[in-house]
Amino acid sequence: MSSKSTTKRADALRSIEAIVQAAAECLGRNPDASLSEIARAAGVGRVTLYAHFASRAEVVDAAMSRALDRGNEVLNAVDLTGDPLLALERYIDAGWHLVDQAQALLAAAQRELPAGRIRELHAGPAARVEALVARGRAEGAFRTDLPIAWLINVLQAVMHSATEEIRAGRLNPERAASHITATVLAAFTPPGIPVPEPRGGA
Amino acid sequence: MSSKSTTKRADALRSIEAIVQAAAECLGRNPDASLSEIARAAGVGRVTLYAHFASRAEVVDAAMSRALDRGNEVLNAVDLTGDPLLALERYIDAGWHLVDQAQALLAAAQRELPAGRIRELHAGPAARVEALVARGRAEGAFRTDLPIAWLINVLQAVMHSATEEIRAGRLNPERAASHITATVLAAFTPPGIPVPEPRGGA
Repeated sequence: MSSKSTTKRADALRSIEAIVQAAAECLGRNPDASLSEIARAAGVGRVTLYAHFASRAEVVDAAMSRALDRGNEVLNAVDLTGDPLLALERYIDAGWHLVDQAQALLAAAQRELPAGRIRELHAGPAARVEALVARGRAEGAFRTDLPIAWLINVLQAVMHSATEEIRAGRLNPERAASHITATVLAAFTPPGIPVPEPRGGA
Repeated sequence: MSSKSTTKRADALRSIEAIVQAAAECLGRNPDASLSEIARAAGVGRVTLYAHFASRAEVVDAAMSRALDRGNEVLNAVDLTGDPLLALERYIDAGWHLVDQAQALLAAAQRELPAGRIRELHAGPAARVEALVARGRAEGAFRTDLPIAWLINVLQAVMHSATEEIRAGRLNPERAASHITATVLAAFTPPGIPVPEPRGGA
């Protein structure tokens, strides 16, 4: 391989990296950010952008993948051992901030990407929380009369609805994590068991 | 006023009625149904449709308003008196079927209309369920440590997430109402009070 083609390839990788980073930033501020805007923020021309990405959907996909990789790193640092209720509370505390930060990017993704692809990109965090919920069920902390997939759906639906409530001005962002935690812990409590008292004061 | 203009006005009302009905049906099957398709189903030309509706958004708005008027009639027939838990269960049973039936129409509305307008259209059902939740809180059946607006949000988020789970093939439609009820009753239970046993078998 000539050093010329190596240089060209290094240039391409640098452009791609700059475009993905710019896309994550621009779409994170505004889900309607245009490809021209993203190219400008990346310091490349539209032609270069189109040389690497066939469509707006591909750019959004790459930005979303990047945000989820970062999110996975954060979530991997969360201790999910010990009391399942406390572990779920820690997961929501960390996961909620990621959902909140990524809300504009997710809005862009929901417009551009099929729901199946968005779910696929979330597979990493989903697997970790699923393992936690399964353990909580095995230990009797979480209800087993509803399917685990439904419980995960409830967790995600409540987290995402909180971002919409904030955007609509109906929820103080500082209260979001405690509201989500109080709601999800109650929803996961087995029938006949008392709903846990909120720890931080919901 | 001449009888000619009266006839013209009657014709216009008939066309509008036919367009709104066709829009509710077409968009209820397929949120991407085109205005040409809707005009054809209504038995009018595109020119007539555009004479009465300035945009696709106006057609979707009219179809959504119509569906919600029908839904309101159904919900008005639901008995929301007596034990708040049983009343909420009856509300979910009826409301859930409406959400399920209107899911494609709602998807069209979410693409075309601002979130504020969709919320405004839901004001009727929202007011009834809010009164029920407020009564349940006053009677000690539902938690008061979370704001009422948050509890209503949770109810709506869980109902809407169920339609998505069904669409994705992860939830049996026959189980939806019992899953939603079991989840929402638990989420609404005051801290320290046992989660109610599912009645119909969740």
